[in-house]
Amino acid sequence: MIYLDHAATTPLRGEVRDAWLEAQGVGNASSVHGAGQRARRVLEEARERIATSLGCQPIEVVLTSGGTESVNLALKGLWSSRGPQRDTIVLPDGEHHASLDAASWLVAREGARVRSVALDRVGRIPEDAFREALDSSTALATALVAANETGTINDAPALSRAAAEAGVPLHLDAVAAAGHLAIEFSAWRGPAVAGAGLVALSISGHKLGAPVGTGALIVSRHAAPDPLLHGGGQQRGLRAGTQDVAGAVALATALELADAERQTENARLEELRSRFLATLGARLPEAVVLGDPDSHLPGTIHLHLPGAEGESLLFLLDQRGISVSTGSACQAGVAEPSHVVMALGYSAEAARQVLRISMGRTTSEADMHRLGEALVDDYSRLTHR
Amino acid sequence: MIYLDHAATTPLRGEVRDAWLEAQGVGNASSVHGAGQRARRVLEEARERIATSLGCQPIEVVLTSGGTESVNLALKGLWSSRGPQRDTIVLPDGEHHASLDAASWLVAREGARVRSVALDRVGRIPEDAFREALDSSTALATALVAANETGTINDAPALSRAAAEAGVPLHLDAVAAAGHLAIEFSAWRGPAVAGAGLVALSISGHKLGAPVGTGALIVSRHAAPDPLLHGGGQQRGLRAGTQDVAGAVALATALELADAERQTENARLEELRSRFLATLGARLPEAVVLGDPDSHLPGTIHLHLPGAEGESLLFLLDQRGISVSTGSACQAGVAEPSHVVMALGYSAEAARQVLRISMGRTTSEADMHRLGEALVDDYSRLTHR
Repeated sequence: MIYLDHAATTPLRGEVRDAWLEAQGVGNASSVHGAGQRARRVLEEARERIATSLGCQPIEVVLTSGGTESVNLALKGLWSSRGPQRDTIVLPDGEHHASLDAASWLVAREGARVRSVALDRVGRIPEDAFREALDSSTALATALVAANETGTINDAPALSRAAAEAGVPLHLDAVAAAGHLAIEFSAWRGPAVAGAGLVALSISGHKLGAPVGTGALIVSRHAAPDPLLHGGGQQRGLRAGTQDVAGAVALATALELADAERQTENARLEELRSRFLATLGARLPEAVVLGDPDSHLPGTIHLHLPGAEGESLLFLLDQRGISVSTGSACQAGVAEPSHVVMALGYSAEAARQVLRISMGRTTSEADMHRLGEALVDDYSRLTHR
Repeated sequence: MIYLDHAATTPLRGEVRDAWLEAQGVGNASSVHGAGQRARRVLEEARERIATSLGCQPIEVVLTSGGTESVNLALKGLWSSRGPQRDTIVLPDGEHHASLDAASWLVAREGARVRSVALDRVGRIPEDAFREALDSSTALATALVAANETGTINDAPALSRAAAEAGVPLHLDAVAAAGHLAIEFSAWRGPAVAGAGLVALSISGHKLGAPVGTGALIVSRHAAPDPLLHGGGQQRGLRAGTQDVAGAVALATALELADAERQTENARLEELRSRFLATLGARLPEAVVLGDPDSHLPGTIHLHLPGAEGESLLFLLDQRGISVSTGSACQAGVAEPSHVVMALGYSAEAARQVLRISMGRTTSEADMHRLGEALVDDYSRLTHR
């Protein structure tokens, strides 16, 4: 099997699995006795390593069950603790469904209003438009660090500065970015302004080789979102529930591995990507590469293939043992046009004619060669060229 | 080390670890391709096994990150979807902090009112009092299947019947009970009444040998609580987020092992408990066993030790390598008197003079003998007898 859907989930890494197994041991990190203290020590070491990797302080690391929980905690928590006369959520087009659906719920249940920000043609959030959307009625803003479908990378420091200057709390969704890009929470946040600027950042473990069910929301010490889960008061009271010691160790290990390998691995993937696109361009000139040619996740290739349904291509490739996606896995079960592609200015019909190829650590040149051959062949069959 | 705090968390079982490892594999269960389909098949098989163990239907199993999330989803979700003119939460004294704190948040944020139900002297929810608390203003009720501190078992079928007759949706917190007691969701629920009677039941994986971070909320097909986590629409739209395939397999495996061993293991623990208490009664007649002598979790021993601070005993025992607790681990870091013991009619001072000993699979007769010797000795030192 050739697995080219690493953006949906990437396999648990061997080193991470070993670290997870080793961290298993008796003891609830909230218990007073020696076993509890040992669990707490292992947990807090892992929290420090996560903080070091993400450029924040250990106390700012709130462990969650993954990206969706992190994003929901950020958006709903910041909404609940918003300032007076602030009733608007600034929501760029093309955000992940966790953000879109959490915002929709706030609209329906809490009377929030959404102010959208149009993307440019390469799927980037224009900084000027983002800045203009922020004002004294803004309760919170959210933005992707890198887009999960197109792979386009936004200018996180610039968006953070804009939010700080406007006095608006900003959440960054780094679920697709973490691992591939260096996250520098404190540096992006800049000088501390209580409750404004970058205050929260979401990551998910299973996108970078840690187990499903691990993740974190980085929450600035200068912000106090309302929690989603109430109970034992763990983690600054921001997220109750028995803390997942082994999950934290796994997440820390996966982040450190990604940090250590980033330069080499990103160069390798960028090279695979360039070669694949060069060959495809020669043999399938109709194919349009979506996203930002200058600033994208190295492993992500988002293609518009005029005249061929993405779903049909996906099925044909799958029959050859090649796994790709039409977009976010969370929505891929539903045959709807990608809202992300439509946000680039494409029609609903065109937005169905897309494939997302996402490479990862296990991807070889041979994999990409086979994909290229298969894609040219299947595209021809579908479009009767 | 002698670990007697299995109610806080119990070690990951070897068989569960192996099943978790084996279930690791490429593929997001929401992906369309073959790898996704395989992941989905493994996930749905695990869901069926969980349903079989808990006596519900597979579609009623909503996987969560654990007990706290399950309880929060139940209480907040049922509150959000409550009927008109229903503004009261029926909350017995002695519930776990996940329920208490979720309810407090609903009071503070949503204007909910709480109607408490006093426990009897053995920590049981009196069925008459529970029934009387339910009326047409009740938005929802919650109750422990078994109490996490005292180990007292409530009559879940009777509480469910009372809720059904009153037309009130009931959540049962089975976090402490699952594994030790057979859970029979559909049988307890009885004839279907849409939105009333037993509609939701919480369990947590790490209390029964599955990893921390696994758990489930059983949600009746006849109920539609509002979700806490919005996003990709997974799990009937009740809980968004990439589904934890390996975690589901681990949870299923742990539940099945508990089912298979329950009779033998419970008899073994009951025997250890009886012998320990017989010896203690002879040597430390001041000790009072809390909870219901006739109906309790076999592994739980909750003691009132007049004149000795539970915290001090805990530290002395810990120095001998014996891990026990004064109550719920989630609160044990805070030296507050146990609200559960106060709910039995004890003063705040007396409520500080308690120890919870919770046995588990690894507990031997030798462990309990050493605990007994140590406890008699340390109690004498503290009370200067």
